[in-house]
Amino acid sequence: MTATQLTQVQIDNYGPWTVTPEPRREMDLQTLQSRLFADVAQFVGSRDGYVFFTRADNMVAVTNGLDREDHALLQESVRNRYPVTVSLGTGVDPVPATALETASRGLQNAGSAQDGERTEVLTGEFLTESSPADLQISHFDVNDATTKYTDRLNEFDTFVEIEQGYASLMRHLREDHGGLSFFVGGDNIIAVTPSLDEADYRAAIDHVERDAGVSLKVGVGEAVSAHEAGMAAKHALETCRYDGTAVEFASDAHTATE
Amino acid sequence: MTATQLTQVQIDNYGPWTVTPEPRREMDLQTLQSRLFADVAQFVGSRDGYVFFTRADNMVAVTNGLDREDHALLQESVRNRYPVTVSLGTGVDPVPATALETASRGLQNAGSAQDGERTEVLTGEFLTESSPADLQISHFDVNDATTKYTDRLNEFDTFVEIEQGYASLMRHLREDHGGLSFFVGGDNIIAVTPSLDEADYRAAIDHVERDAGVSLKVGVGEAVSAHEAGMAAKHALETCRYDGTAVEFASDAHTATE
Amino acid sequence: MTATQLTQVQIDNYGPWTVTPEPRREMDLQTLQSRLFADVAQFVGSRDGYVFFTRADNMVAVTNGLDREDHALLQESVRNRYPVTVSLGTGVDPVPATALETASRGLQNAGSAQDGERTEVLTGEFLTESSPADLQISHFDVNDATTKYTDRLNEFDTFVEIEQGYASLMRHLREDHGGLSFFVGGDNIIAVTPSLDEADYRAAIDHVERDAGVSLKVGVGEAVSAHEAGMAAKHALETCRYDGTAVEFASDAHTATE
Amino acid sequence: MTATQLTQVQIDNYGPWTVTPEPRREMDLQTLQSRLFADVAQFVGSRDGYVFFTRADNMVAVTNGLDREDHALLQESVRNRYPVTVSLGTGVDPVPATALETASRGLQNAGSAQDGERTEVLTGEFLTESSPADLQISHFDVNDATTKYTDRLNEFDTFVEIEQGYASLMRHLREDHGGLSFFVGGDNIIAVTPSLDEADYRAAIDHVERDAGVSLKVGVGEAVSAHEAGMAAKHALETCRYDGTAVEFASDAHTATE
Repeated sequence: MTATQLTQVQIDNYGPWTVTPEPRREMDLQTLQSRLFADVAQFVGSRDGYVFFTRADNMVAVTNGLDREDHALLQESVRNRYPVTVSLGTGVDPVPATALETASRGLQNAGSAQDGERTEVLTGEFLTESSPADLQISHFDVNDATTKYTDRLNEFDTFVEIEQGYASLMRHLREDHGGLSFFVGGDNIIAVTPSLDEADYRAAIDHVERDAGVSLKVGVGEAVSAHEAGMAAKHALETCRYDGTAVEFASDAHTATE
Repeated sequence: MTATQLTQVQIDNYGPWTVTPEPRREMDLQTLQSRLFADVAQFVGSRDGYVFFTRADNMVAVTNGLDREDHALLQESVRNRYPVTVSLGTGVDPVPATALETASRGLQNAGSAQDGERTEVLTGEFLTESSPADLQISHFDVNDATTKYTDRLNEFDTFVEIEQGYASLMRHLREDHGGLSFFVGGDNIIAVTPSLDEADYRAAIDHVERDAGVSLKVGVGEAVSAHEAGMAAKHALETCRYDGTAVEFASDAHTATE
Repeated sequence: MTATQLTQVQIDNYGPWTVTPEPRREMDLQTLQSRLFADVAQFVGSRDGYVFFTRADNMVAVTNGLDREDHALLQESVRNRYPVTVSLGTGVDPVPATALETASRGLQNAGSAQDGERTEVLTGEFLTESSPADLQISHFDVNDATTKYTDRLNEFDTFVEIEQGYASLMRHLREDHGGLSFFVGGDNIIAVTPSLDEADYRAAIDHVERDAGVSLKVGVGEAVSAHEAGMAAKHALETCRYDGTAVEFASDAHTATE
Repeated sequence: MTATQLTQVQIDNYGPWTVTPEPRREMDLQTLQSRLFADVAQFVGSRDGYVFFTRADNMVAVTNGLDREDHALLQESVRNRYPVTVSLGTGVDPVPATALETASRGLQNAGSAQDGERTEVLTGEFLTESSPADLQISHFDVNDATTKYTDRLNEFDTFVEIEQGYASLMRHLREDHGGLSFFVGGDNIIAVTPSLDEADYRAAIDHVERDAGVSLKVGVGEAVSAHEAGMAAKHALETCRYDGTAVEFASDAHTATE
C-alpha cells in the first residue's frame, strides 16, 4: 500500500506581483518561473523527490523523504534569491489526490493565494515512517512519437496531439484512481498513483486510445522515494521498448498477471 | 495584415541522449530543460521576441526582429554551455500555423529529430522588411481563477480545469484561424494569430465556455514585435479587468465594432 | 580541536575543452563557470557546507556533513546537465591546508587535470564522526569600505585596494596557520582555519594593516558545519560593527582573552 | 587609438540587504551573485561586450556596442527577476581607467552605494561613433600552469601563485597605462588597455616575472567590440602556445617590432 507525501509549492501573491506597478516583460516572467522550478527540482530531486511544473505559480511535488526542516530550508533559500516568496502545504495519504487535498487546504486555510498579507506558509503533515513500496510511479510515453508526429507534422500540431493524449490520461487517472499525472516534455508523462495493477494500466492505455487516438506504453516502479520508483519505471519503459510490450512493472514491484 | 516569423527550436537527438548509456535522473532532465528554455527566453526576449516552452525538446518562438545571425549566435551559445545542441527552423507567413509549417519542414528535410548525425541545422526564411502591425498577440486569462479554483480546489483539480480550457482554445484557434496558443502559467494563455477582430475573439471565448465550461477574457495587441504586441495585450487585459469587459484591443490596434 | 573536511572540485580537462575545436566565446565560458559554481553552492550549501569559487575550474569546498554518496550524486548531476564533468578529491585534517593537500593529491594521483582520459575521479577520506567544534570559520570585512573606497574611487582602484588586502591575509593565514581564506565579494573574506584564538586574529589584522594598508575586522564561529560556524561568524561580525571592536568570537566559540 | 566604453554595474544597497533583517545564508548570497553575473555576461556577451565579476556587488563591463536603451533594458530585466536592483554608470575614453572614472563618478554623484533611497541610476556617456580599433584586449595565461602548479601543489597553494601573478599584473597595467586587468578563471587574465605595443607587453611580462615569480604569455587583439578583440587575442595566444613565443598580436592588430 502506498503512502504518498505531496507538497504544493505556491508563489505568494504572484498574480498581483506580475502587474505591479505595471505588467512586466513576459519573457522575464517566463525566465523567473522556469528558473524557480529548476531550483525546486534540484533541491527536491537531490533528496530523491520529484516536482512537476504544473502551473508555474503552483507546483506539485512528491516529497517522500523530505521532512519539515527540509521544506523550511527550501522556503528560506527562495526568499534569499528571488523577488517572490513561496508557501508550502504538505499532505500524506495512500491516494495522491487525497494527499494533495490536505496540502492545498492547508494553504487555503491560511489565506488566499492573492492575499498580500499571507506569505511563507509552512503547513501540513509529514510522513513519519517509510516503507519500501510507499510510492508507485509510472512513466508513459507515446508510441512512435518521432515517426508519427515530430518528423511529420508542424510542431504545434504535434503538440496538440500530445496534449490531447495527456488531457485524456490526466482526467482518467484522476477520476478512476485519484492518481496525478504530469506532462514532463517530449512525449513523456509521469504519474503518481495508489497501488494499481497491470489491468488498471491497460485500461488507462485503452481509454486514451479510444478517447484521444493516442497510443501509449508504460513502465511502473514502486519504491520508498519518487526518484527510485521513477527510475525503476524508466527502466521498465525501456523493457517495453525492447520487448514491444505495452505495460511493464519493474522487477521489484507488484506485477499482476495478464 | 500580419507577417509572423516563427522559429522552432529543437534539441538534437534528445530522446536517445536522455537514456544513453542509461536513463538519467528525471529532476536533472527537468532542470536542464527549464534552464535551456529560460536562456532562450532571455536571448529572444531581450530582442523583443517571445518563446514558449511547448514540449521542452521542441519550443516555438515568435522571432520577428531576429535575423539569421541572431539565430546562429543563439545556437553557438547553447553549444558552449549545454551537453546538447539545438537545430533551428524558421518560417514567415501571415498565418502563424503556416509559418510554423515552413519552420518544421526545414528541420524535417534536414533529418529526423532522433538522427544522431543531424545537428545544429539552421534553416528557413527570415523577415526582410517589417511593418507596424506585423504581429497580433492576444493574452487570455480565466475569469476569477483564484476565487473559483485556486482557493477552493486542490491544485491538481484546478490544473485540470485550466488545462481543459487551454486544450479547447488551442484546438479552436488552430482549426479556425491557424492561430497558435500557449499556456504560460497561472491562468494565462498567450496566442499569436493572423489579424482577427473582436467578433473572432468573442467566438473563441464562447466556444471555450460551451466546450470546457471555462470563462475567459482577452486583451489584444498589434505591433512590429512580440514584446510590444504582447505588452499592449497585457495592458488591454488590465482594461478588461477594470471595466468588466470580455474583449479589449489595445488602442493602437485594429478594433472591430461589435 | 578542528576536523576540517575539504573537497577540491576540479573540472576535467577544462583548458583543452575551452579551445577545442576552437576558442569559445569568453562570455559563454564565464556563464558556464559561474552557473556551475552556483549549482555546487546550492548543493553543498543546502547540506550546510560552503564552497568557494577559487579558480572556477578548481573550487575548494568545506564539506563537513557531506559523505561519499553526496559527492557521487553531485558528480552525477553535473554530468547530466553540463558539457563538462568534475573530479572530486576529499581530505580531512585539523589543519585545512593539510586536508586540502590530501584532496589535491588524490586527484593528482589519478591523473593530470588536462588528461583527456581521466574523468570523474571520486577519491579521498570522509569524516566518520563529527563533534560540535569541528570547524572554525571567520568572516572578515574591510572597515568603512563604502566610505573609504566604493563611494570615492573608481571601481577598479577600489578593487585593487580590496585585492591587496586579500592577497596579504591569504598568504599570512596560509603560512602561519595553514588556514585558507577566500574573497567572497564586496569587501568580505571568509576563512577556514584550525583552532585560532583572539590573539591570532589580532595578529592577522595587524599584519594586513602594515603589509597592505587595509583595515579589517573579523567575526569568528565554531560549529559542526560550515554553515553554522559561518553564520555564527556573520553574527559576531555584526557585533564588531555595533560595538566598534576588531575581533569578536560567537558566544559558543573559544574566546581568548586579549 | 582606442575608445573604450566602460560600464560599472553596482547592486543597489547590497551590503545592508545581505544582513536585513538578519544575515542571510552565505551560499544563497554566492548563488545570487554568480547567477546575476552570469545573466549580465549573457546579456552583454550576446551584444559582443565583456563583463568581469570583479567584486560581485560591483562589476566592470566593456560595453562598446551597447547603447543607453540596452543598458535600460538590462536594468529592467534584473528588476523583474532578482530581489535586488542595479545602478549603471558608463564612461568613454581612450584610457580604460579614465572611462571607468567617469562611470564610477556618475554613480557616486547620484548617491552612496549603501543609500537606501538611491536605486536604478542610469547615467553617463555612450560611444556615438565606432571605429575598427576602438578596443585593445589582451589575454594572458600562465606558462605551464598545469605542470608547475595544478598537478603538483594543493589547490590553495596553486591559487596563491596565480593570485600573486594577477595582483602584480593588475597594479602594473593600471599604474603604467591605465589598463584594467581581470582574473577570469584557471590561469587566465584578460585586460582592456589603451593602444599598447609589443614592448609594453614584454615589459609587463618581465615585471610580473621579477615581482611575483610568475611567467606569463599574452595574445593581443584590436577590434570594434570586446568579443571580436578578445577572440582575436585568444587566437593570438594559441599562436604563442604553438610557436613558443611570449607576445603575439592578432594579424589585424598593430604589431610593433621589438
